[in-house]
Amino acid sequence: MINRIHELERLASPLEPLPEERDHLFNKVKKYTDKFLSEIYECPAYVVTEDKGIGLYHSPISEIPIDIDEALNLLKYNVDRPGLNPASGGHLGYIPGGGIPHSAYGDFLAAITNRYAGVFFAGPGAVRMENMLLDWMAEIIGYPKGSVGNLTSGGSVANLIGIVTARDAHNLKAKDFEKSVIYLSEQVHHSVDKAIRIGGLKECVIKYVPLDKKYRMQAEVLEQTILQDKQAGLNPWLVVASAGTTDTGAVDPLKEIGEIAEAHDLWFHIDGAYGAFFILCDEAQQILKGMATSDSIVMDPHKGLFLPYGSGALLVKDRQKLLDTHYYMPNYLQDTLNSRDELSPADLSPELTKHFRGLRLWLPLKLLGLAPFRACLGEKIWLARYFYEKVQEIDFEVGPYPDLSVVTYRYTPKHGDVNEFNQKLVREIHQDGRVFISSTIIDGNITLRLAVLAFRTHLNTIDLTLEILKEKVKFLERL
Amino acid sequence: MINRIHELERLASPLEPLPEERDHLFNKVKKYTDKFLSEIYECPAYVVTEDKGIGLYHSPISEIPIDIDEALNLLKYNVDRPGLNPASGGHLGYIPGGGIPHSAYGDFLAAITNRYAGVFFAGPGAVRMENMLLDWMAEIIGYPKGSVGNLTSGGSVANLIGIVTARDAHNLKAKDFEKSVIYLSEQVHHSVDKAIRIGGLKECVIKYVPLDKKYRMQAEVLEQTILQDKQAGLNPWLVVASAGTTDTGAVDPLKEIGEIAEAHDLWFHIDGAYGAFFILCDEAQQILKGMATSDSIVMDPHKGLFLPYGSGALLVKDRQKLLDTHYYMPNYLQDTLNSRDELSPADLSPELTKHFRGLRLWLPLKLLGLAPFRACLGEKIWLARYFYEKVQEIDFEVGPYPDLSVVTYRYTPKHGDVNEFNQKLVREIHQDGRVFISSTIIDGNITLRLAVLAFRTHLNTIDLTLEILKEKVKFLERL
Repeated sequence: MINRIHELERLASPLEPLPEERDHLFNKVKKYTDKFLSEIYECPAYVVTEDKGIGLYHSPISEIPIDIDEALNLLKYNVDRPGLNPASGGHLGYIPGGGIPHSAYGDFLAAITNRYAGVFFAGPGAVRMENMLLDWMAEIIGYPKGSVGNLTSGGSVANLIGIVTARDAHNLKAKDFEKSVIYLSEQVHHSVDKAIRIGGLKECVIKYVPLDKKYRMQAEVLEQTILQDKQAGLNPWLVVASAGTTDTGAVDPLKEIGEIAEAHDLWFHIDGAYGAFFILCDEAQQILKGMATSDSIVMDPHKGLFLPYGSGALLVKDRQKLLDTHYYMPNYLQDTLNSRDELSPADLSPELTKHFRGLRLWLPLKLLGLAPFRACLGEKIWLARYFYEKVQEIDFEVGPYPDLSVVTYRYTPKHGDVNEFNQKLVREIHQDGRVFISSTIIDGNITLRLAVLAFRTHLNTIDLTLEILKEKVKFLERL
Repeated sequence: MINRIHELERLASPLEPLPEERDHLFNKVKKYTDKFLSEIYECPAYVVTEDKGIGLYHSPISEIPIDIDEALNLLKYNVDRPGLNPASGGHLGYIPGGGIPHSAYGDFLAAITNRYAGVFFAGPGAVRMENMLLDWMAEIIGYPKGSVGNLTSGGSVANLIGIVTARDAHNLKAKDFEKSVIYLSEQVHHSVDKAIRIGGLKECVIKYVPLDKKYRMQAEVLEQTILQDKQAGLNPWLVVASAGTTDTGAVDPLKEIGEIAEAHDLWFHIDGAYGAFFILCDEAQQILKGMATSDSIVMDPHKGLFLPYGSGALLVKDRQKLLDTHYYMPNYLQDTLNSRDELSPADLSPELTKHFRGLRLWLPLKLLGLAPFRACLGEKIWLARYFYEKVQEIDFEVGPYPDLSVVTYRYTPKHGDVNEFNQKLVREIHQDGRVFISSTIIDGNITLRLAVLAFRTHLNTIDLTLEILKEKVKFLERL
């Protein structure tokens, strides 16, 4: 048996590279990322390719190792070339983020040290770091001390946790689902719909509250509907509003909704995945201060703090509610029972073993302090306002003045179908690739969106976008 | 406005470090991790400290930046010192993993390039990479071509996805929950209980199928119970088995359960978070081959492939079922509609924006090939068998012969309470810290566990553990 064990140990030894092998890998990876970053302000934001990374399939998972050069080549041509480049400042579609390099060091450290941030007993410092970050977020939102939360993989899981917590807080029984009402904005993010479905709540009555001209939920209609529903014997229990919708960047009237929710005993959940971190800059204080009235809120560091993908967060005001839904003590974790001076993420989320997400957030915040984040968020708001003005000068129609940093706009051509024209326009811009914008459908109309949130987006990016729009409109009108 | 924008751009500029600043950070981080790894075979697996990382709180999130040396010092003393060191080969508690360094380069690359692996249109290569990895996993499990899956943050979310998919596949209505029966092993991982709760299914009837002497689910009792339940007008719809339980490492009789599930039209979900990847080594082929009979299975690369925390996976045989629960097309993603030659993770999971988890798995598999992984898994099985023999030679009682790589054992002292003695023993070992073991309760008895799965655990680690056990027993018996 001993011989077999030694033989297997020898065969497994490549899993632990020697220091010089690590140096080799390190240098190659550094060179690759240095090159990537040195080109980031010049390279396209979107690349249309025929093969779309199919080359990966020519090098399947197998017994045969390849060297780091070959691996990085596969990566370069198949992964880091085709499609959208979310690290680019030219990414102005969907909701951009960016990926500040400081987080990459955090991820690297987390992967090498492999600290376990799930349970305080096992990883006390890692858990404290995550709790400290959540405390800070609660503070900027205006939640009271004692609020809790969880660092998630992104906004969707954060919304899921918020909604199942609300479900249990209202002690909903399955047989009552079909009489229980959820109020959503027509512009709610679809991850909320998904969360409702995943949480087993698809049989609830879902009412979409109509919007005003700025695409914000009409609070007075919400209240009327709640009253009518109560009279009809239904059970209104949850309202979800947005601190920055994805489509138009609109901020619902949060304070009013919060007051209505409180008056009628509804759980008030805010999806602030895109917008909540704008609270860090002066420009958005006024419009966002109602966030504090919610029971739970989602905010995504991989959007509003420019982190690489993989960082969302949920905050819940009443810690007991989050615990009620997620706490569970199995036998094999009994040794951890005596160590409870800090709440553990495993007791506050669906996850147990998980990525140590705190470090990728803590490191940039500590290395940079908050000032650059505040400034960058302010810059994004002003860039959206700037675009809002300038795009009208080149004859685009615009939607409402931006609440935060999303602008909707469209072009009405002299001839032909408006929707078709704008669809062609967005395709032309994708083909061009220097910047990336996306479109949506609002009131049945194809509408272009400019979402300014990549930290590498600056005034010259917006000027370039305006130039491209002008150029492509000219081209399409000549066809 | 232009001036304000320029001013904010300037203030935000620290978010983009200059090449020389990046080099500086890179070198510091490299030095830190080099030191960490150079000491990893000597440093303790568990460190008891008074402060448990409280020092982090003395440096709050604020306007004031700190330099990288200070940040790494905070990390060293508050995060990477106290508690469990999961990177250590001495980690023999819970279910260890390890964190092979190759993944760290993958995480670093993913964070810098920030590719979006959620939707094929946006990140075609990144999505292909994740699908390719899932195809490979399906292949080793014995799932047919066309199976699908999702790379998750860990086993808990993977179990959640599997269970809500099963729920929807069986078209369970809320009013029927209380007549619908879920069959679990008494040793099922608590993440399955949590997933049931999160999926809104806590009102289902949950039956714990009794275990045989090897702590495996008794398939014949399962079948009898299903038949009785059907006769009683209940609706049996889900059975969850384990390919390696957490407590004892037992593998349920998967083939038999699969046949029963098929005969009675139940969804068969396997939690193979700990054990499924052992299919890669000869030693476990026989016991695990029944995995192929399941409808869905969870397997964790951050356990069985030794990745750093943050990598689980779910596979589902019938792709339509996974899509039915998770697919949703919002307006603002309409541009992605024409690009569907590859399924997208966002349509197969609760997540939308998410960590590009493929790279941390693909890179080590490609750089190393499969051979070292197979060998390392085989080594772990033999180390458990070795310990099973040797620990009896120093007068410990053992549980069943290990199905995979977990051994249960306890010491019966000459005098005094057995449970108390073993509890003291585990505490002594935690205080000592050279290795880390954990305990559990089996049949009401405090039982010690040895879980061999860290890739840095070798024969000398097991010999050291045996020595420590002997030494601590001697010490405690003298008290």
